[in-house]
Amino acid sequence: MTERVREILSWYAGSNPGTLTNLARMLNHGVLGGTGKMVILPVDQGFEHGPARSFAPNPAGYDPHYHFKLAIEAGCNAYAAPLGFLEAGAAEFAGEIPLILKLNNSDVLYETPDPCSSITGSVADALRLGCAAIGYTIYPGSALRNEMYEALRDLSEEAKSAGLAVVVWSYPRGSGISKDGETAIDVVAYAAQIAAQLGAHVIKVKPPTAALEQKEAKKVYEAQQIPIETLADRIRHVVQASFNGRRIVIFSGGAKGSDEKVFDEVRGIRDGGGFGSIIGRNSFQRPRAEALKFLDTVMKIYGGQIK
Amino acid sequence: MTERVREILSWYAGSNPGTLTNLARMLNHGVLGGTGKMVILPVDQGFEHGPARSFAPNPAGYDPHYHFKLAIEAGCNAYAAPLGFLEAGAAEFAGEIPLILKLNNSDVLYETPDPCSSITGSVADALRLGCAAIGYTIYPGSALRNEMYEALRDLSEEAKSAGLAVVVWSYPRGSGISKDGETAIDVVAYAAQIAAQLGAHVIKVKPPTAALEQKEAKKVYEAQQIPIETLADRIRHVVQASFNGRRIVIFSGGAKGSDEKVFDEVRGIRDGGGFGSIIGRNSFQRPRAEALKFLDTVMKIYGGQIK
Amino acid sequence: MTERVREILSWYAGSNPGTLTNLARMLNHGVLGGTGKMVILPVDQGFEHGPARSFAPNPAGYDPHYHFKLAIEAGCNAYAAPLGFLEAGAAEFAGEIPLILKLNNSDVLYETPDPCSSITGSVADALRLGCAAIGYTIYPGSALRNEMYEALRDLSEEAKSAGLAVVVWSYPRGSGISKDGETAIDVVAYAAQIAAQLGAHVIKVKPPTAALEQKEAKKVYEAQQIPIETLADRIRHVVQASFNGRRIVIFSGGAKGSDEKVFDEVRGIRDGGGFGSIIGRNSFQRPRAEALKFLDTVMKIYGGQIK
Amino acid sequence: MTERVREILSWYAGSNPGTLTNLARMLNHGVLGGTGKMVILPVDQGFEHGPARSFAPNPAGYDPHYHFKLAIEAGCNAYAAPLGFLEAGAAEFAGEIPLILKLNNSDVLYETPDPCSSITGSVADALRLGCAAIGYTIYPGSALRNEMYEALRDLSEEAKSAGLAVVVWSYPRGSGISKDGETAIDVVAYAAQIAAQLGAHVIKVKPPTAALEQKEAKKVYEAQQIPIETLADRIRHVVQASFNGRRIVIFSGGAKGSDEKVFDEVRGIRDGGGFGSIIGRNSFQRPRAEALKFLDTVMKIYGGQIK
Amino acid sequence: MTERVREILSWYAGSNPGTLTNLARMLNHGVLGGTGKMVILPVDQGFEHGPARSFAPNPAGYDPHYHFKLAIEAGCNAYAAPLGFLEAGAAEFAGEIPLILKLNNSDVLYETPDPCSSITGSVADALRLGCAAIGYTIYPGSALRNEMYEALRDLSEEAKSAGLAVVVWSYPRGSGISKDGETAIDVVAYAAQIAAQLGAHVIKVKPPTAALEQKEAKKVYEAQQIPIETLADRIRHVVQASFNGRRIVIFSGGAKGSDEKVFDEVRGIRDGGGFGSIIGRNSFQRPRAEALKFLDTVMKIYGGQIK
Repeated sequence: MTERVREILSWYAGSNPGTLTNLARMLNHGVLGGTGKMVILPVDQGFEHGPARSFAPNPAGYDPHYHFKLAIEAGCNAYAAPLGFLEAGAAEFAGEIPLILKLNNSDVLYETPDPCSSITGSVADALRLGCAAIGYTIYPGSALRNEMYEALRDLSEEAKSAGLAVVVWSYPRGSGISKDGETAIDVVAYAAQIAAQLGAHVIKVKPPTAALEQKEAKKVYEAQQIPIETLADRIRHVVQASFNGRRIVIFSGGAKGSDEKVFDEVRGIRDGGGFGSIIGRNSFQRPRAEALKFLDTVMKIYGGQIK
Repeated sequence: MTERVREILSWYAGSNPGTLTNLARMLNHGVLGGTGKMVILPVDQGFEHGPARSFAPNPAGYDPHYHFKLAIEAGCNAYAAPLGFLEAGAAEFAGEIPLILKLNNSDVLYETPDPCSSITGSVADALRLGCAAIGYTIYPGSALRNEMYEALRDLSEEAKSAGLAVVVWSYPRGSGISKDGETAIDVVAYAAQIAAQLGAHVIKVKPPTAALEQKEAKKVYEAQQIPIETLADRIRHVVQASFNGRRIVIFSGGAKGSDEKVFDEVRGIRDGGGFGSIIGRNSFQRPRAEALKFLDTVMKIYGGQIK
Repeated sequence: MTERVREILSWYAGSNPGTLTNLARMLNHGVLGGTGKMVILPVDQGFEHGPARSFAPNPAGYDPHYHFKLAIEAGCNAYAAPLGFLEAGAAEFAGEIPLILKLNNSDVLYETPDPCSSITGSVADALRLGCAAIGYTIYPGSALRNEMYEALRDLSEEAKSAGLAVVVWSYPRGSGISKDGETAIDVVAYAAQIAAQLGAHVIKVKPPTAALEQKEAKKVYEAQQIPIETLADRIRHVVQASFNGRRIVIFSGGAKGSDEKVFDEVRGIRDGGGFGSIIGRNSFQRPRAEALKFLDTVMKIYGGQIK
Repeated sequence: MTERVREILSWYAGSNPGTLTNLARMLNHGVLGGTGKMVILPVDQGFEHGPARSFAPNPAGYDPHYHFKLAIEAGCNAYAAPLGFLEAGAAEFAGEIPLILKLNNSDVLYETPDPCSSITGSVADALRLGCAAIGYTIYPGSALRNEMYEALRDLSEEAKSAGLAVVVWSYPRGSGISKDGETAIDVVAYAAQIAAQLGAHVIKVKPPTAALEQKEAKKVYEAQQIPIETLADRIRHVVQASFNGRRIVIFSGGAKGSDEKVFDEVRGIRDGGGFGSIIGRNSFQRPRAEALKFLDTVMKIYGGQIK
Repeated sequence: MTERVREILSWYAGSNPGTLTNLARMLNHGVLGGTGKMVILPVDQGFEHGPARSFAPNPAGYDPHYHFKLAIEAGCNAYAAPLGFLEAGAAEFAGEIPLILKLNNSDVLYETPDPCSSITGSVADALRLGCAAIGYTIYPGSALRNEMYEALRDLSEEAKSAGLAVVVWSYPRGSGISKDGETAIDVVAYAAQIAAQLGAHVIKVKPPTAALEQKEAKKVYEAQQIPIETLADRIRHVVQASFNGRRIVIFSGGAKGSDEKVFDEVRGIRDGGGFGSIIGRNSFQRPRAEALKFLDTVMKIYGGQIK
């Protein structure tokens, strides 16, 4: 157990030893194990975007085992997926990588300005599949946000008492905010805060832009001259908004982009004190060998072997 | 146990000894312990207004430990916050200050004319975190008021049977009343009455203005010549509306204003027979030393050391 | 146990002995105990109309103990109030007067053409407070009537199995009927019938006017020459509509009016075979001595000592 | 509400208002209503001793209605019986006398040195029958005492939360003590203490003799010179052993004896500060007129009209 | 919060913040508050030994209020008693001293070589009475030990999840050991270990003698030359057996003895690193003024003001 992991665990003193154990399982696994940094492979796009959009670019990804193997071989800290994907591999790969069961998911066969995901798994499922954590998505900005917060509250209480960790995807979205506002720095920082206040152990948000969405917030950012120019600045602010760094915040890799763009983003996250990345499409939508190399570079940036 | 605290507890003879014990824990703690007056530090603005608007003016406040320490060092009677903030410090500061778990919260990433907070914590959470009370916000005047009253009823029954106290933030807001009406004396007195009838042990309202919102009420205030000219008059009326003083009513400190304005307000609350203040932004949005001095003055006004 | 009370209880042979016991507790208590007539003090106006409109005319009424004492000293059969008011005195006045816990309430800070009260208490609350009955308001004529009927059904079933009596305030109101229609004889009789069909043991309606609201009903009233000219006629008809007198029907005292007007109304209720009055504002909005004298007269009219 | 009843209720401040209400119902009913003294009619002998032993001496007593009427006409404070007897009359006599449902009973068709009663009713039964209290028998001294204490604990918690009072018959019996020991002063005082510590509101024991059963206790009685010579002395000691008089202790009338013997015993109970009697066989095993006269004398002794 | 209390709480990092809060409430209350030493007043002897043996030496003790007052005035850290005694004062003394509800008790009207206490209270009782902890007695050495361990396990799990602390009286007794063995050093150390392994937060044992009961243990004590000559030696060993001092171990005061004998024992406990005393009979069996002086001396020995 490294000093850094010990320090991180100390922020969760109010949690029970089971939850600490599961946090440690994720923090200590894989290439970045012990550094306090995390790279997680999430694969819920099959549900969220449909199979062809998700897996046709690299058809090996239609197979659930592919993602288990990719996460294991790449040395990710954890692998996150919906019920079906985990049920299809949890036995075969038992003990090889910490698992996160995504407990809610949303498909795009019906779209609405105020989205709300469906609950698709349970804490009991997470336990029987040997997971280290549950995952849950909230959409601050949606008219249905309260339904999601309340369902999270219930699941979270149950998960915590069973010694699981709680990972919250906090994605602002809905009629309360603009499209650009979804990644505006004030909104992303707010989304991180909401997840933290709802009791998340690990928070996942998108890397924020320098946009400012809310009028009242804009005034404060300008008056207080909060630095938001570089990505590192903005990451630093989001980490601050996550209980001054007392909660693990990781950032999504987003849609597939050029590798250098992603690596630069990872550098920004690292330099701003972010705890890591959760990278789906950029990992599994390319051939396995490329993906392993890509993830290796990401981890080396976090590990400091690459500047 | 002072005579005054004993007198206050006598008003709650219908409550079980556990609830009396937790009321006493709050009434007997801190600088004002035993006087029957209370100053509570509430920090739910991170959720309610967003992190930057809340904490950028004094960035130390991004850290959940900051508020525990502030409340403890200032000698507040209790510290109130949502689940995440309490989970992030309840173990480290166990036994140092009575805690109130705010069980519902509302963010402003989605706004609506008829607000309704989300339930973000449970009675079981309050017990495992060692809280003395649950806190809950209602918005009389909102089309969704009944949903809030009914959820409060359920939580309140459970909390009371487990020996916790119930603190209700009664904030008129919604399409049923005007913006000015939110703090009009008739509306604030009515909001206090609603909270009391719903079974609150401690009621929090805003300091009322001399405005009169409702036509039928206005007639009565004028016909009966109810004194509402000075703040002390109005506080006296709100205390009267809270079961003739048989329920503890405290007043919010509101947005950050000039110190003298706040101190005058505190004098008005004290002179009108109010039981104290619940002061968030005016406390934590300034540097620690200033905040301690500020709260010290507030407590001295309540304690009578300052006229 | 008088013959009359025994006769009244015989109408409820389908109810369990606990419910009969609690009906008897109310019928046998106070000045009218044993006569089969009832005068009940209800004080829910603090919640329903606001504290100043309710209590400023007689400020002693801000204090919850005032109403317990008034009901006890006046010799009322029971005292009905919401959760907060009962919690604030049930221990102190335990055993001195039968209590009715009003389980739903509505405030006027948000008004809507189709009102629906909020549930503000439970059957468990009624038991722990030592009540003889639950009270519940329905608004026939409101678009939300079914929500209210269904919630009543659930509460009523639970209350009856715990041996409590069920008192239903049946107040036609909402977009389905006109303002005058709220007290039209056809509507009031219909409201009494609905309450009776919903399983109420005691029904409270407003004294009806001679107006006829519904076209189809009007035809019948005229064709059948149903006598509705005098108040006594109309009361007789409402009693008839309440299972031919096999359910206790009592009448609200309404807004404060001249004493003689109220006394005449009481005479009409008595002469038409009504079972009594539930008089709030006319009782507690005047000084205590006057109120006691006023209620004494009302009871003497029911008791026959005053013609 | 007399001062004395108010004083007695003040000893139960830890109980909810419902329980206080039901204690008041018993204390305020009947000839001794308001005096703080109680005479209760218990009829569980049909189950405990068999019907002929119980009712043949006065065959009217085979009829359950007989006992309701006797208790009502004699002006007893309450009537206690098992499920069947109460079900057979609770509707017909609803509201005429407070009822106590005996929740456990034992028959003598199977006898054993270490008796344990069977649970024969529930708290739900008590509520649907309109009872003011549950009754329960424990046999300290029996090898099965713990089973009885634990069942009482469960029933008692449920009854208290539903606002009922708890009456405990504490009858030492079993292989742990001798036959004479069952009524020895040290054992009876101990039995009263056990019932009080188990949370009983009202305790029923047998009038104690001057015998001392337990060696260790005997030493103390002698060393401390505890007065146990007269019945009044011993009653005083039992009352002291019942939380220094802060719990209502009543005494059983025992097997049918000469009237003067019973009256002398009642005088002893009264003079020693006992709260009353619970008299079964001496009441119902004689003709009705005699029984009424007998009970009238008992009540007059308690009331002080007879020296 | 003193460093010492913080250190003690750090040993319970696996407990939730509610339990830490309740441990802190006890550690911080009274004369020894903050020192890490505790003196607790337990009064369960009325149930365990009978009322006269317990209270006749100082008859004021028959009154439940006496013990609340004694514990409060003496400045004890907590007051422990069965359900009845706590129900009889918890409302009146709410908030004045931390309470421990003894959840099982045993009387001596039936004695058996293999004792087993009866469960006489619940975790829900502890919460509604405002207790800081539950108390529970186990009898290692009894044939029925497993029934007791298993009931403790259930109650303990429930208590811990509700944020209460668990205090275990571990009293070796039963056919498995000799009378002298009950206080033999090997047995007492073993009893402390069992309580600690069962999850107790606070362990109460009797001060051990230098006797060695079990043959296999004796060999080790002799081979390893474990120092057990002085009481301080033996206390040190028991503390060691309680997780090397990571669990609070307190020692019973035993039967009333000469003051100097008790004070010497307290010195031994202090010098051996024990955490304090739980002193019943030696406190409440003497006149109040003497008891206060006696407890003052005990506390001064623990506090170090008296050598």
